[in-house]
Formats: sequence, structure tokens, C-alpha cells
Amino acid sequence: MKKVTLLGGTGSIGLQTIDLIQTHPEQFQLVAFAFGTNVEKALPVIEQLKPKYIVVQNRETFTKLSNKISYSPVIKYGMEALNEVVSLPEVDLVVNAVLGSVGLEPTLEAIRAKKQIAFANKETLVTAGHIVMKEAKQHNVELLPVDSEHAAIHQCLKAENRSEVKRIILTASGGSFRNQTREELVGVTKNDALKHPNWSMGAKITIDSATMMNKGLEVIEAHWLFDTPYDNLDVILHNESVIHSMVEFVDQSVMAQLGTPDMRIPIQYALTYPERAKYNLSEPLDLVKIGRLNFREMSFERFPCLRMAYEAGRVGGSLPTVLNAANEEAVKLFLDDQITFLEIEKLIERELESHSVIHNPDLDSILELDQEIRNRVSNAVLKR
Amino acid sequence: MKKVTLLGGTGSIGLQTIDLIQTHPEQFQLVAFAFGTNVEKALPVIEQLKPKYIVVQNRETFTKLSNKISYSPVIKYGMEALNEVVSLPEVDLVVNAVLGSVGLEPTLEAIRAKKQIAFANKETLVTAGHIVMKEAKQHNVELLPVDSEHAAIHQCLKAENRSEVKRIILTASGGSFRNQTREELVGVTKNDALKHPNWSMGAKITIDSATMMNKGLEVIEAHWLFDTPYDNLDVILHNESVIHSMVEFVDQSVMAQLGTPDMRIPIQYALTYPERAKYNLSEPLDLVKIGRLNFREMSFERFPCLRMAYEAGRVGGSLPTVLNAANEEAVKLFLDDQITFLEIEKLIERELESHSVIHNPDLDSILELDQEIRNRVSNAVLKR
Repeated sequence: MKKVTLLGGTGSIGLQTIDLIQTHPEQFQLVAFAFGTNVEKALPVIEQLKPKYIVVQNRETFTKLSNKISYSPVIKYGMEALNEVVSLPEVDLVVNAVLGSVGLEPTLEAIRAKKQIAFANKETLVTAGHIVMKEAKQHNVELLPVDSEHAAIHQCLKAENRSEVKRIILTASGGSFRNQTREELVGVTKNDALKHPNWSMGAKITIDSATMMNKGLEVIEAHWLFDTPYDNLDVILHNESVIHSMVEFVDQSVMAQLGTPDMRIPIQYALTYPERAKYNLSEPLDLVKIGRLNFREMSFERFPCLRMAYEAGRVGGSLPTVLNAANEEAVKLFLDDQITFLEIEKLIERELESHSVIHNPDLDSILELDQEIRNRVSNAVLKR
Repeated sequence: MKKVTLLGGTGSIGLQTIDLIQTHPEQFQLVAFAFGTNVEKALPVIEQLKPKYIVVQNRETFTKLSNKISYSPVIKYGMEALNEVVSLPEVDLVVNAVLGSVGLEPTLEAIRAKKQIAFANKETLVTAGHIVMKEAKQHNVELLPVDSEHAAIHQCLKAENRSEVKRIILTASGGSFRNQTREELVGVTKNDALKHPNWSMGAKITIDSATMMNKGLEVIEAHWLFDTPYDNLDVILHNESVIHSMVEFVDQSVMAQLGTPDMRIPIQYALTYPERAKYNLSEPLDLVKIGRLNFREMSFERFPCLRMAYEAGRVGGSLPTVLNAANEEAVKLFLDDQITFLEIEKLIERELESHSVIHNPDLDSILELDQEIRNRVSNAVLKR
């Protein structure tokens, strides 16, 4: 029985994790449940699984929740409480499904407490990969990726000698606007952008898929998780999202992991690792029914956010923090109807261009810079 | 440095193995070289790599070769000599690329001598899988498959718990006549049949691909190599031969191995196992260039040889020996222009139907039965 702390419990990954915990009650027990402010989504989960510890984002949510709950868990709010529940001695597994770089500190805490970590918080690796991976190595903790691409790569590398890897090939569905030219992106709406062709995911990642920033963040994440130089990280377009990613070896063998586009499969992989558990919440992959798999070349011209991510990753230092903070804020503004779709990439590019890179930034500099960039991006827009 | 005995040296797999030994002279030394009767093909290899031991099929070839050779190796002929060179104390690796069930005895000898075995002789496993695998288990020897399909499966299973395998999916290109209906097979010629769309292989396996018997033999081989029941072995049509085979796990993850259709890649995998060596004799896989991968349902009606192989495999006992012997002989007759393409399957079906199955046959019964079936198939045809 694995005892679980779940961070980001009301997001898309969080709720799908809950699905799996409910499907395997003999394997998992939810001990601590952390979420932001969405009491409506949290309450049914909490009442059903009755976690001993609950953490919410702020005092207001704390009060709202406390008034509605039928039993007596420990309820806290704020970052310190988040750090507390990831390092509880009774916890075996921390699922970090927090959205954005706010997951950084609890990730470091979980590493220091040597927990098994199912990791769905790519922004944390983008913003502070050098710090996180150094701590992970030091404490001999492996971050088990939950992203379908990284879970695929993890499976392809499982039995392999890392020195025999030639390159990692991430697949990209192309997102909501994959059939549009750049000219056709003028005037696209939030609702258009939120219609992902294959995956059911949260709003932020769906927008990131449409801009291809998601793949950019994944490239940076893969760089850190699999210790792979950017020159050996490629992206190809693959409409069907059936091959989740691939690894090419020095002998020209290519290993791939395939599956139906159902996030619960990679989530379960990380939860039950090193074992695989039975899964039957969706239909198994049927290649005959699908008939064909398509592949196209990726284009930096069509998807400048991917280009920017490679550039930020290659330069390193504080630049990926700028990339991520500007992107998080720009997506928020787009979802708040404050900017157009094409302005997302413009805001990010502006921040990247005006930034003077700090080499090997420490945690405090990162957190400070992250806040500074967010403020600047949102102020610039809200003031205009 | 691995010291190698190569059986079947002038066949397609044999000569491609030689390519690899020549490419990696620092890794491999050819100690013993066995072939049938093709002195013309053998001589340049022998003169270049100067193996210490040479085995040929018969006295005539022995004399012919002895007269032409420029140095003084030990030259012998016959089955006993074959058994000798696989168990030489100085040999590390035996490549069994012999065609047909004649490879059975040397396979058993190599197992008993605990050699690393690169195995390209599927007929041996089809005809006597229960005996070979029992010996392999007893001597703790793994047969490293050279067939691209089985090498793919081997790679997919490398890090995995066998109890978590749900099914193995072999891919089939469909062979030379994949675009023909059964009606269109009437009157097809040997030359048509020998044009494989993807792979460059020997004549026998190319005909087996056209009848789909090759896939049937592979299903039986996979049954033995990976200890998998026939119900968990599926075949799908995949025109491009890019996905070489797949394994589906209980969690619905599917692992696949992909590559360009170049037999030297799986051969090298078995030669260098557990390491992967650099390979650059062909272009690496380029999915963007290929553009799309197609998948279609396999049909037993269209390909009755596959149905017969499943049936023979499921019944077991001596029936797979009958399947294989009748097929080997029928293909030989087809290549000798004695029968039509569609008569291949008719001859096999007749032998399977008239055979009284022996359960758990021993080696002598298998060898005897094998000979009996061959004689009956060829006599029936040659007498008519």
C-alpha cells in the first residue's frame, strides 16, 4: 500500500490521479490532498477519500472549505503547509501535479525527504532544472515523469545504457491550430484554442499546446530528466498522438512507447512504478482501427515558441525562468481575454530579448526573477 | 573480442553477419565458418577472414574448396563436424544462420556448450521448440533472436516483468503479393514471388513471406522464445516494415521497436548484446521522410498458411514438425518450378490433415518424421 500526497488535486492531472487511486484502493491511500481554491471540485474527493491532511492556497479557501467538511482533517493553507505535507514521514509517494513554478519548493522538499515522486510539474524543471536535478542526484531520488512524452521516454530508456542513446524524439500533436497557417492565427479565439484535437487536459497546457510552448517546455524538461543535450532532442509532428515519444540508439534501433491518448496511463505508470498495474478505464490501442500514423517535420517558423524554448534552454542560466514566467503570465492574460493569441509569443519574446542572463542562479534569485517577470508582463498589458 | 562460429555463412544472414564482423574487426574474430555448397560465395570470405575451422556440407564441396584455398585451415564436412565447431572451447558466440531444421542438432550442441547464441534459424524452434527451450533453460542459455521481429520483441521485453505482458503483436509486411487477391494468385511466377517489397532476404524466406508462412513460423518461434501462449500472439499487416514488432502490457502501454528494414541491425543487436554498437551501414530511420505508417487487419482467409501455423502451434506435439518439413519441401519444389505458388499451401494442408500427432516427441522421432514428410511431399510431386 502506497501512501500518497497529492499536490494540485483539482487540476486535470490531479483529478485523473484521484480516478486511479479510486480504481486501486488496495494499492493507494490518499493521505494528504492539496489544491488551490476550487472547493467545489475538491469537496467530493475529500469526502470520499477522507485524507488526513488538506492544504489549500489561501485563508479564504481555508474558511470556505472548513465550513463544508463533514469530518476533522488537519486543514492548513499556504506554501509552508505544502512543504510540510510532502515530507510527512508516513508518505511514500508525492504526486506533484501543481501548475506552474509554484511547484518548485515542494518538489525540493519531497526530494530532500526522499519520497517517490510522480512529477507532472514541468514548469519547475524549466525554471530551476539545475537546482532540482542536483538535489535529486544528491538524494538519489528519481523524478518519475507523468507527462505522456516523458513517461514514454522513461520506458524506452528503462533497460538501456544512457551512453548508447543517440537522440530523443518527442512527438507533438500540433495542438488546436495545427491545420492553420500563421496568417490564419490572427483573430483566433480562446474557445478555438481550448479545443485540443487528441488530449483532454487543463486550460493552461491546452493553450501551451496550441502555441507549441508546451513542447518547448517538454524539451527543456527532457534535457533535465534524461541528462540529454539539446542537440540530441528532436521534435516531430505526429497528428494522432499514438507514438508518445521515441529514443534512437547508436545502433539505429528506435524504441517507442505507444498508447491511446489517455493521461491516466502515464500517471498510473508513475504511481505504480517499477510495476505496471492492470488498466481498463479506456479501450486499448487498436492500430488497425486507427489505420495510419502520420509524421511531419516540425517548423520553428510556424511555431516560434518552440524556437524560443530551444534558445532559452541552450543559453540556460536564468533565461528558462524568464521564458516560463512570461509564458505563464501571458497565457493567463489570454485566458482572461486581455491579449490575443499571437500576443502570447510577442510578450515572451520581448522578455527574453531584454533579459540579462544570470549564470547558475540560486533559488532565491529564481523566485525573485519569476515574480518580477510576471509583474512586468501583466502590468504592461493591464496598463495599456 | 568475441570469437565467432558462423553456421550458414553463405546465406543472406550469414553474409550480412560477415559484413558486421568486417565492420567491427576489434570486436569479432571469425574462428569457424560453416556453409553448404556455395564455394564461390564462401571463398572470398574465407580468404579475407581466414577462419581456423571450415565446415561444408559434403565431400564434393570439401574437395572443391580444399583445392582452391590459399592457407591451411582445418576443413571438415558433415553434421558431426558442425556439432564440433559450435562447441569449440575458444568460441564465445555461435551465429546459427542455417536454413531449415538441419540447424537443430548444432543448436542443441551450442546450448550444451553454453555459448552465446545469435539465432536466425526459426525452423529449429518450430520443429523442436519444446526440446530446444528445455535445454536452453537447463543450461541457462538465452537464444538471442536475429529475426527483426523477435529482436524487436526482445528489446521491448528487456526491462520488463514477463507477468505484465498482455500480448505480443508481430507486424507483417504482407510479402510480394500483399496487393493481390487470392484469385490473382493463380499463375503467379517464381520471379514475382521473389520480389519482396521491403526486405532483402534469401529465396526461401522471401517465398515464406509471400505465403505468410514466414509469419506463421515466427508466431511459433515467438511462442517458444518468449514463453507466450498463442492466444496472446497477434499479427497485423504493416506495409512499411518500420515497426518491427510490439508488446502490449497490462497497463495498456505498448512498446515498439522501429528501424529501417536492414537485417544487419537486428543481427548486430544479437552479436553485440547486451551492448549496442554504433551502426552506420545504412541511413537511420526518418519518419518524416516516410510520412505515414499503415496498419491493416490480418486475414486467415487470405493467408491460410498463417492459419495452419497457428493451428499446428496450438495442437503442438509433432504437428509443427510436419508443418515445417512440408513447407520447406514445398518451397523447394516451387523454387525448382515443380509446383505452382498455390500448391505450396495445398501440400502443407494435406500433410497436416493426414498426420496422427505424437505428443512430446523426442529428438529421434522429430528427425525421422521430418525426413519422412520431406520424402512424401517431394515424391508425391515428382512422381505425378
